[in-house]
Amino acid sequence: MATAADTAAMRRAVALAARGLGSTSPNPVVGCVVADASGHLVGEGFHERAGGPHAEVGALRAAGPRARGGTAYVTLEPCNHTGRTGPCAQALIEAGVARVVYAVADPNPQARGGADTLRAAGVRVEQGLLEDEAEAGNTAWLTAVRLGRPHVTWKYAATLDGRVAARDGSSRWITSAESRADVHRLRAESDAVVVGSGTLRADDPHLAVRGIEGVTQPLRVVLDSRASVLPTARVLDGAAPTLIAVAEDADTRHLPGVGIARLPAGERGIAVHALLAELHRRGVRSVLLEGGPTLAGSFVAAGAVDRVVGYLAPVLLGAGPAALADAGITTITEALRLDVNATDRIGPDLRVTATVPKGA
Amino acid sequence: MATAADTAAMRRAVALAARGLGSTSPNPVVGCVVADASGHLVGEGFHERAGGPHAEVGALRAAGPRARGGTAYVTLEPCNHTGRTGPCAQALIEAGVARVVYAVADPNPQARGGADTLRAAGVRVEQGLLEDEAEAGNTAWLTAVRLGRPHVTWKYAATLDGRVAARDGSSRWITSAESRADVHRLRAESDAVVVGSGTLRADDPHLAVRGIEGVTQPLRVVLDSRASVLPTARVLDGAAPTLIAVAEDADTRHLPGVGIARLPAGERGIAVHALLAELHRRGVRSVLLEGGPTLAGSFVAAGAVDRVVGYLAPVLLGAGPAALADAGITTITEALRLDVNATDRIGPDLRVTATVPKGA
Repeated sequence: MATAADTAAMRRAVALAARGLGSTSPNPVVGCVVADASGHLVGEGFHERAGGPHAEVGALRAAGPRARGGTAYVTLEPCNHTGRTGPCAQALIEAGVARVVYAVADPNPQARGGADTLRAAGVRVEQGLLEDEAEAGNTAWLTAVRLGRPHVTWKYAATLDGRVAARDGSSRWITSAESRADVHRLRAESDAVVVGSGTLRADDPHLAVRGIEGVTQPLRVVLDSRASVLPTARVLDGAAPTLIAVAEDADTRHLPGVGIARLPAGERGIAVHALLAELHRRGVRSVLLEGGPTLAGSFVAAGAVDRVVGYLAPVLLGAGPAALADAGITTITEALRLDVNATDRIGPDLRVTATVPKGA
Repeated sequence: MATAADTAAMRRAVALAARGLGSTSPNPVVGCVVADASGHLVGEGFHERAGGPHAEVGALRAAGPRARGGTAYVTLEPCNHTGRTGPCAQALIEAGVARVVYAVADPNPQARGGADTLRAAGVRVEQGLLEDEAEAGNTAWLTAVRLGRPHVTWKYAATLDGRVAARDGSSRWITSAESRADVHRLRAESDAVVVGSGTLRADDPHLAVRGIEGVTQPLRVVLDSRASVLPTARVLDGAAPTLIAVAEDADTRHLPGVGIARLPAGERGIAVHALLAELHRRGVRSVLLEGGPTLAGSFVAAGAVDRVVGYLAPVLLGAGPAALADAGITTITEALRLDVNATDRIGPDLRVTATVPKGA
């Protein structure tokens, strides 16, 4: 039975976990709070980056001997395997914790079993407290485990009539400075940011995170089957790592020292799933798709969009390209129907966050 | 100095006024609350329809002799002229009211002067309490007085990517039943509902209000320069009055008994301002534009949209017509920028209400 104190401790653990968003891949985000035998919070921690200490280890270290006989609240089932760090289940046992409460069971076959190990050592184990909140915080990683590809968020900025640019192609700025700053937050939470060569040519985007302290820069990915990117493109500077995804036979001699991935390409360019498989192989668990309407259409057509974040400016244009181009949908019954998770005012604009229902 | 009791009474008057929305044209909506000398509310009323009693008269009738020495709270300056009913300023004086608090000054040259008349009779008069709320409730009428044309709300229903139909033209249903019901509320608050002949041919819409008790049906208006409407069109049934706006030389012999307005037409059809002038002449003060993208584009190009109500369904199509067609805007600096007034969840959809800034 969870008490109000249990819930408060787990809520804190969920908040701690979120601090790791965008820097823990290929690991999940995890938060942990340790209370002593009388219920006082004596340690907390979160997983900050792959190779760094797990959340439980940080919290136990802070708690020291006060963990003995206490409770550990963890957002994810404590791991059972020895990776770059030792198994957390063992660390909890050795610290003398009497009870472990965790929110989400670990779906990763390499890591699960922590709960069993704890129980075998006589620790009381409870699962499910604030499970939904903890899952929401780990959506990208859980999606990646489930589907074997990164979680994809398609971000777009459009007018109320769905345009991403005026008739003459001008688009600076449809959305507000506040919305554009918010996009940097989305980037910071992502492992990779993806654009196509069309956006590259039109905007020469930089794609790195600006204005957020201590951020782990996402991998900047350009789908560029013909390797048309110029060596002077802003995306090739040193602000963040960059990967150019090109067709297998593309000539990349003008790009010495640039990260290149050679992938199968069809008439619409690099195949979406080939790209996602390659990114997954490289440890990317969350992708922010910032490409233009054509690339977004390819992702939707491939069933490879999990979440949509639309910045809608209260602006009317009446002409110009629409936010989403051909996604292979010809009639209303084939439309991709989403669930709205949140609507927020961002400066003068509106941000709509929607997800693709599981199984859609 | 307004007391909390004054504010509460005026808030009630504003709420009463709103009950008249859609049925008072060409008059404004007005609400009135009367308190006796000791501050107890003893009467209330609202203007229900043109030709019917004004709000003050209804409230005074309910209050009877208890109005003597009391206060009348009115959302709009009491009228000073004798129209279909006697002047309200005179009625308030005769009832022996000691104080009149009104929110908004009457901008109508035929009606103003009520405050002066009251003061000349020794009544204490105060203006401005809850002025913004009262103005918002009377936006359509105030716009019509200021501009000499009806207030226009453009309503559209679109996907998140701004489409109003799929590639094959199918559009039933993009938005939810809840959103479609909400449109009936918008219609009920409007004096006229306007569509073009394209929407008429594509959808054979009915345009009357359904599902709302005791409603005053709006005038159904079809812009149909060539008088192509068939006598069997649903819009021509008896559920509500209908006006077909045709070009001056259109042949309307197949439409005996149908309300026809002959108006100047250019190559894009009936001129928007000619239509609005004709509707204004007929007492229409608020128009709900439910036409398709082309007609909406004409209204935007003519500067004749005051408010936008967009129903956005969490749906992606990637193809199909956009919500707004050519509005004469070619570059981003010419975009029509609105202010978002409200965002509401309507069933699974999102409703965005935005207004064109005054002077834009």
